Amino acid sequence: MVKRAKGRQESGVVIKKLEELGQGMIREIDARKTPSFQTPLRSKGNVHYDEKLGCLHLGEKNETRSFVNVGQARKFMQTVAIANKCKKFLKEDAHTSIRGLFYQLKFSLGENLDEELFSEQSESNPLIEDLEVSLDVKREDLNLNTDRKGVVAGPLILRDKFGGEETRIDCRKQGRSGWMVPSDVDNGMEIEDLDADYVLVVEKDAMWQRLNEDKFWKKENCILITPKGQASRGCRRLISKLAAKKLPVIVFTDCDAWGWYIYWTIKTGSMNLAYLANDIATPSAKFVGVTMRDIKDYEFLGQMTIKAKEVDLKRAEEMMNYEWIARHPEWVEELKVVLKTKKKLEQDALQGPSLSFVGKYLKEKMEAKKFLP
Amino acid sequence: MVKRAKGRQESGVVIKKLEELGQGMIREIDARKTPSFQTPLRSKGNVHYDEKLGCLHLGEKNETRSFVNVGQARKFMQTVAIANKCKKFLKEDAHTSIRGLFYQLKFSLGENLDEELFSEQSESNPLIEDLEVSLDVKREDLNLNTDRKGVVAGPLILRDKFGGEETRIDCRKQGRSGWMVPSDVDNGMEIEDLDADYVLVVEKDAMWQRLNEDKFWKKENCILITPKGQASRGCRRLISKLAAKKLPVIVFTDCDAWGWYIYWTIKTGSMNLAYLANDIATPSAKFVGVTMRDIKDYEFLGQMTIKAKEVDLKRAEEMMNYEWIARHPEWVEELKVVLKTKKKLEQDALQGPSLSFVGKYLKEKMEAKKFLP
Repeated sequence: MVKRAKGRQESGVVIKKLEELGQGMIREIDARKTPSFQTPLRSKGNVHYDEKLGCLHLGEKNETRSFVNVGQARKFMQTVAIANKCKKFLKEDAHTSIRGLFYQLKFSLGENLDEELFSEQSESNPLIEDLEVSLDVKREDLNLNTDRKGVVAGPLILRDKFGGEETRIDCRKQGRSGWMVPSDVDNGMEIEDLDADYVLVVEKDAMWQRLNEDKFWKKENCILITPKGQASRGCRRLISKLAAKKLPVIVFTDCDAWGWYIYWTIKTGSMNLAYLANDIATPSAKFVGVTMRDIKDYEFLGQMTIKAKEVDLKRAEEMMNYEWIARHPEWVEELKVVLKTKKKLEQDALQGPSLSFVGKYLKEKMEAKKFLP
Repeated sequence: MVKRAKGRQESGVVIKKLEELGQGMIREIDARKTPSFQTPLRSKGNVHYDEKLGCLHLGEKNETRSFVNVGQARKFMQTVAIANKCKKFLKEDAHTSIRGLFYQLKFSLGENLDEELFSEQSESNPLIEDLEVSLDVKREDLNLNTDRKGVVAGPLILRDKFGGEETRIDCRKQGRSGWMVPSDVDNGMEIEDLDADYVLVVEKDAMWQRLNEDKFWKKENCILITPKGQASRGCRRLISKLAAKKLPVIVFTDCDAWGWYIYWTIKTGSMNLAYLANDIATPSAKFVGVTMRDIKDYEFLGQMTIKAKEVDLKRAEEMMNYEWIARHPEWVEELKVVLKTKKKLEQDALQGPSLSFVGKYLKEKMEAKKFLP
């Protein structure tokens, strides 16, 4: 596997990498060669699971982006222009979004820009990802914000240096709202104090609010995080940073396709961000529920199941074949129950008997260490 | 128009209203009549614009929901069951989501529930809205959370009583993240201090982060809010509360269909929440930009326009016919330019010349009071 830098990189280091990229091209032009750059191949065929590390990563295959390739010239030019702008942002110590970057380029380059390439949608990502992998930096280190999502509460104090000021964020004192996980939890962000026994990641914001209202994190002395669905890069990075502080990470999602996907993305990383798994995966994460086998211990849950959707069944089939899942008989068994019964369970179902039952369920399962791997 | 209660309602008052709803039905049954309840009609034909108030509201038309009507019996039963659960939540002083409510009902009523009616999607809303309008309460007063969205920073201090504790939220000390606007900004939430000159509402989170990084709210002594797209109920209510403190509210969105819709929803309320406009609309709101006429003052913006989508053009046509827009010649003129040029402008375009140019633009336009009404 290709080794990648871990954690944040100083802006001086990143600026140097950007300059070297440009200087390399100038040398090529001076030598009457075609300017080009190498980048690890990010397609599915070059994504592998590393059993020892417990996460996805990129293999050794590379591709070369070349200025004289007709199919690549336009993209090549735009990637170089992006590198140039990112250097400027780093020198100015200012951040922007991909959309802000697009207008900076439109201002300098005029109309000759492929607008669609810079939409907020996922199509815009490959241009930035080229830079991330070829320079071995993270987008966050290029001062490009990603969509932020996710909320945290619990015994965690952060120091946030931002916009020339420093703020102390006490995640025990965020009331009903919690502290919003930003795009970048590395640059200018330090953990000042962390006095928790574990991290609980809760799929849904509504369930997070329920547990926050019951002061679950206080009673349990845990960090309570919701990614609000699929975890953002910032949220995955925060979870991974907390795991690096030796905290167990426990994930609590629906028992359905989306819930499983959220769990495995946190644990092993995702296909399209495989090159970042080093930084944002948490291989030690464990799954607390809800599971179909919970019905044995909590009889009422048998009445709480709802019909599985086609996507849930299809996904369950697929997952049984992923090597990082197939090696866990507990998961295979769980998925087989879903396929056989064509039923699924939502975490919200645990509110059936009483609004605060969900806390009781979580405590009992955690005390008995009833986790899926 | 039907007069509605304004602001939050004490849980004691709400519990009484719920009990009266049930007692009325028992009286009807005892008198061998059909249990029923009256609710103002919420369809488009009963939504009107009030010129004096400057917002949408419901007219006088009512409909009667009856238990013996074959088409309504099931819904009727579910509405009554919901009322019963909400009373329980209020007595327990605990909140949940519509999904949590669904499982509480599923637990008590068994399988006989229309699951689709309780999905997190908009189809579930009518059941709760029936209760809101017929009892003249807000969902938030029934302890039912709505989706929360939106972020605020600036000279505003809040006291948040929640889950048996009180937290002081200083919106000047929220670092890069800002304070997340919760579902309910009334119950248990007090404004302790507010020392701002105005409120700036910024459509996009990315632009909010840009302005927050430049400490725009500090330099300008304003409250900086982003609804992150269309404003949630909680966000609209917060804006309306700040406006009630005599602060001017200035809205900054894209010059396109979605941006205009966000502005007018904040200002006049929306069709489907017309019954709440009293509480969540801000008729005094003004529009700072971006506008097509900005191109006269900021020449570079002429190069920053992008192609308008079909939806933008269709929406512009429709808007010219809304009575609350047609009465403003400045708006009609603006919409005509979009229709004629088939171009639109995004707020992000103001980052073209430099990342911090957007702050300069906003200051200049506000000093010159170049607003659309």
